[in-house]
Amino acid sequence: MPDNKIGTYNFVAEPFHVDFTGKLTMGVLGNHLLNCAGFHAADRGFGIAELNENHYTWVLSRLAIELEDMPRQYEPFCIETWVENVYRLFTDRNFAILNKEGRAIGYARSVWAMISMETRKPADLLTLHGGSITDYVCDKECPIEKPGRIKVTTDMPVEVYQTRYSDIDINGHVNSIKYIEHILNLFPMDTFKEKSIRRFEMAYVAESYYGDTLSFYREEVAENEYDIEVRKNGTEVVVRSKVVLV
Amino acid sequence: MPDNKIGTYNFVAEPFHVDFTGKLTMGVLGNHLLNCAGFHAADRGFGIAELNENHYTWVLSRLAIELEDMPRQYEPFCIETWVENVYRLFTDRNFAILNKEGRAIGYARSVWAMISMETRKPADLLTLHGGSITDYVCDKECPIEKPGRIKVTTDMPVEVYQTRYSDIDINGHVNSIKYIEHILNLFPMDTFKEKSIRRFEMAYVAESYYGDTLSFYREEVAENEYDIEVRKNGTEVVVRSKVVLV
Repeated sequence: MPDNKIGTYNFVAEPFHVDFTGKLTMGVLGNHLLNCAGFHAADRGFGIAELNENHYTWVLSRLAIELEDMPRQYEPFCIETWVENVYRLFTDRNFAILNKEGRAIGYARSVWAMISMETRKPADLLTLHGGSITDYVCDKECPIEKPGRIKVTTDMPVEVYQTRYSDIDINGHVNSIKYIEHILNLFPMDTFKEKSIRRFEMAYVAESYYGDTLSFYREEVAENEYDIEVRKNGTEVVVRSKVVLV
Repeated sequence: MPDNKIGTYNFVAEPFHVDFTGKLTMGVLGNHLLNCAGFHAADRGFGIAELNENHYTWVLSRLAIELEDMPRQYEPFCIETWVENVYRLFTDRNFAILNKEGRAIGYARSVWAMISMETRKPADLLTLHGGSITDYVCDKECPIEKPGRIKVTTDMPVEVYQTRYSDIDINGHVNSIKYIEHILNLFPMDTFKEKSIRRFEMAYVAESYYGDTLSFYREEVAENEYDIEVRKNGTEVVVRSKVVLV
């Protein structure tokens, strides 16, 4: 029953959600993807609200987005999402981004863990609701690479930023979307005048908090391919990211 | 016909749109208000798209928001908007923010001008579509003060910020919502732990651009009342703002 396994959600690219080129920003797209994940899980009994009642929550570990195009200001688009795999400690959730004609203009992959809100330790997904989460596994194709390895060796930050009020979410953490914004702000605007983001990856490694000093390290690892690492307070890695331009 | 004059739009407070207290951020509320203004105007033939065809556009001059409460994460809420006055060079558009029970938890006032996209000069609203915009004037009550005078005398900035990629909108300007975010980031997070924003005002005076250096000046003009001025490149005033906490 693919209708039940794939969730489809409609959006419009709002004026304050597009960048200077008139295309939806990566941060807003990421926000929509994560919202779709939430809607889809909630509709099937695996949403944050239900999990929280049992003191569990979802934690996003990886996100990879690959795009041929981006919706333009005022254009409607839609996001499909489905569960590709459920393992003991992780689940893979995929996405397709369809333009107003219904053609896929991009795909995304995400990896999630479920953790205990008390111990912060990972929980066994296969015992959740008697393993019924596996009923939603769907074999729809997602023709992009899985999240890969991101490696930064430089010790010279390109940016240092102290987190502020607007960075912090209801859990007291810097929110997953704000990292995307800060990372793309490492690039001069001219970069996006000439090039588009072909692939964007995020690896969420640790949480950062209000007042933390984030250092951003960036390396061009191949032509038009940048690996980025964000460390907090001089040491601990918080997130890693890859930006491939075309 | 109040049904035709008042536009009503439904929203839900999304997870990445609430702050650490779990309440909708002022920036996101501002974004929704401006979107509602756009929907309402477009539905009545005065939208940006129609105006642009004749080389005119709307410019937001003032925004004042007063709130008793804010929607919490996942809560549905709705925004009503209507035109209060149309003058030759300005129009007043008001808003009500209703909670999930349909009770008004806040109101907002905005002032707009229409300008020529070529000369940037204001256009006469009363000649637009033969003055038919006045047909939409509505006498619904908006029980909050009009935008007032904001005056900052200090010459010591509390913050200096160079604008970046994510600040810039499709017109090449720093977007109206980003100023709200930057202004609220002047306050330490603890401020919003203890207090809420009772009233928030923005006066949009001039545009700023990519790479501009914005200096933020702030003065506590009365207890819990802050006037803020943002100047670009050391001189020209870009926006003024008032924050009243309770």
